Amino acid sequence: MSVESAAPSRPAPKPSLHKPGSQSALRQLNEQRIVQALATGGPQTQAELARQTGLSTATVSNIVRGMSDSGTVTTSPTTSSGRRALSVALNDNGLVAVGIDIGRRHVRVVLAGPDYRVLCEEAIPLTAGHTAEEGLDAAAELLERLLTESGTPRSALLGAGIGIPGPIDRRTGTVVQGAILPEWVGINILETFSERLRIPVFIDNDANLGALAQVTWGPHSSVENLIFVKIGSGIGAGLILNGALYYGNVGITGELGHTTIDEHGLICRCGNRGCLETVASTATMISLLERTSHRPLTAPDIVQLALGGDTATLRVLDDAGLAIGRAIAHVANLINPELIVLGGSLTGLGDILLDPVRRGLLRHAVPVVGESTTVSMGSLGDRAEALGGVAVVLSQPSLSSS
Amino acid sequence: MSVESAAPSRPAPKPSLHKPGSQSALRQLNEQRIVQALATGGPQTQAELARQTGLSTATVSNIVRGMSDSGTVTTSPTTSSGRRALSVALNDNGLVAVGIDIGRRHVRVVLAGPDYRVLCEEAIPLTAGHTAEEGLDAAAELLERLLTESGTPRSALLGAGIGIPGPIDRRTGTVVQGAILPEWVGINILETFSERLRIPVFIDNDANLGALAQVTWGPHSSVENLIFVKIGSGIGAGLILNGALYYGNVGITGELGHTTIDEHGLICRCGNRGCLETVASTATMISLLERTSHRPLTAPDIVQLALGGDTATLRVLDDAGLAIGRAIAHVANLINPELIVLGGSLTGLGDILLDPVRRGLLRHAVPVVGESTTVSMGSLGDRAEALGGVAVVLSQPSLSSS
Repeated sequence: MSVESAAPSRPAPKPSLHKPGSQSALRQLNEQRIVQALATGGPQTQAELARQTGLSTATVSNIVRGMSDSGTVTTSPTTSSGRRALSVALNDNGLVAVGIDIGRRHVRVVLAGPDYRVLCEEAIPLTAGHTAEEGLDAAAELLERLLTESGTPRSALLGAGIGIPGPIDRRTGTVVQGAILPEWVGINILETFSERLRIPVFIDNDANLGALAQVTWGPHSSVENLIFVKIGSGIGAGLILNGALYYGNVGITGELGHTTIDEHGLICRCGNRGCLETVASTATMISLLERTSHRPLTAPDIVQLALGGDTATLRVLDDAGLAIGRAIAHVANLINPELIVLGGSLTGLGDILLDPVRRGLLRHAVPVVGESTTVSMGSLGDRAEALGGVAVVLSQPSLSSS
Repeated sequence: MSVESAAPSRPAPKPSLHKPGSQSALRQLNEQRIVQALATGGPQTQAELARQTGLSTATVSNIVRGMSDSGTVTTSPTTSSGRRALSVALNDNGLVAVGIDIGRRHVRVVLAGPDYRVLCEEAIPLTAGHTAEEGLDAAAELLERLLTESGTPRSALLGAGIGIPGPIDRRTGTVVQGAILPEWVGINILETFSERLRIPVFIDNDANLGALAQVTWGPHSSVENLIFVKIGSGIGAGLILNGALYYGNVGITGELGHTTIDEHGLICRCGNRGCLETVASTATMISLLERTSHRPLTAPDIVQLALGGDTATLRVLDDAGLAIGRAIAHVANLINPELIVLGGSLTGLGDILLDPVRRGLLRHAVPVVGESTTVSMGSLGDRAEALGGVAVVLSQPSLSSS
């Protein structure tokens, strides 16, 4: 694996000098530099901070005063080379990691501390077919609002881990064709988000973040090989192999939704035919059921109808589950994970969906593999991807030395 | 990953005390202990060797004299705690690793030095349907013959890496159902081989060893993510992920041959229906072609017929290649490797097989994945698996410290 694809890329945050309010943007950037220097190097004097960040001692002194007032850092008198000096230490409980999940119809933002305690979170709806710009605007505004509501200063932000529902080519940092968000294809999201949010940004596929959440926040921290399958408008998987997220060659892994199920089936948005998504995504279920329901349906409606015993919905779910089981049987045959966790908007279905998935797995896997693979429903619900974004930020090497 | 499944298991060699010639077997075992102690701990005195192996100083002195005569070790005078002593050092060029590949119709043995130079190798035919005992006998006899012919003393043997054409449950060390060698199912091969060969033994699936050979002996040493697909009587894959062999949960990975291609196809030996092996293994090709050829065919015959332009053979290969391409498209979608290498008995076909495989890959993979995945024919031919066996022995941590 190349260095570029080994972990979410981390660009230096860029000042947005061409935008209004660039003075305050510059100050925020300088605060951020000082936070990063303290997170990486531990407590140090103002003079040391000035040397490390390249800022003047006057600027450092000015910023440290503000950060001390807001509780981000604590200062204490010390001596350096025989002179009086001020030692600056980061307040761990003042640091905050951001997780952002951008879906086809929603954006969710989570703020959490280095102890993985969630400070606040909120999800807001987006219109389907939103542009990248609109999605980004919504995420940035929601983040600002949560910062204000929770009284979190911008200087406390360690960075944001952002999940996108589409394959990301890690060579270029762009969303490639086959994404649930066709409007985002070709945009360099890493650059776009970094410039807009003005904090270090880590972009990843949403299913990868969901997988990371299972072994970080979920009950599966001891599992070495785990596949997280997100079932929604699209179907994608995140792979934890040998205890770490696996990225492969160019970063496009877990494209489970494009397993051929029916060689002569419907055309898929990826350009092939009869992919798993054309028979088992929530979009497919909805279009099958709307033919007889004569009213617009959503994923929560499917859960509602199934729990109420609607036969057509149960049949559609059974067929979808069998197809998903067949696709994950191929994954199990190849990868032999301990555990496959299902996530996405249908987790509330429980055994209604799990049963046909398990039947499909046992029907299509090599017997000893099928029998030794556990399939369960994710317990983090819609929050998995944003929580995974927080986990990406908190797992950065610079933090473990703070 | 559990410690047991992290690397090929390495049992202590057991003396075969119940067999004729146990006196010489015991001496060989003691020699082996001394070689292992020197490989692990570096040069040391005879007294230190005695302490480390638990052997008497008289036994150590006796064995060291013989090993010095045969060129396995070099001795030199030294002092230890003020007394004269004899320092014993392993001669690197005297050490030999063994690679053994056991197939349905053949066994191959390779001897090579720590510099990966092949000293000698030979393959002999086996009757199809041989018992585990017969296969093991043939391997042991061929090994003895090669040792005699090359003048290699048993004490120079570091161990043997052995490839088996079937899934191995690493929890128990047994071949599980679905193996090409049904007669071997349920046998604890690690124990059986260790007792019989009386050297440290490492058992692995043959496709895993083939994959290891590609990055060790082949031209692909810089590839981090490589899939080796062995096409023969069965179809299996070995996975190099992030630069190392990947074993998953219980060790049964790469079961590509059991990808469902035709939901209502022929019954497969694994118990499922329409698996890739039922449409693309050499056994299937042979049974299709024998209907009209009216004579018994072998895999080399298929290569011969295709190179001669036989239309039926070319059609059978085209259909098989497309199906293999479809299965590896699912692998590429999931794992996103740089390179997929085809091995097995059909490598002589070159583009005749590669072309339909590539067409199948592009037809069924997510476009950007299909386009960024290279498929090539292995250059090590029938030797890949046995060479991989040598690589397993030479990659043991004890050797790197010698």
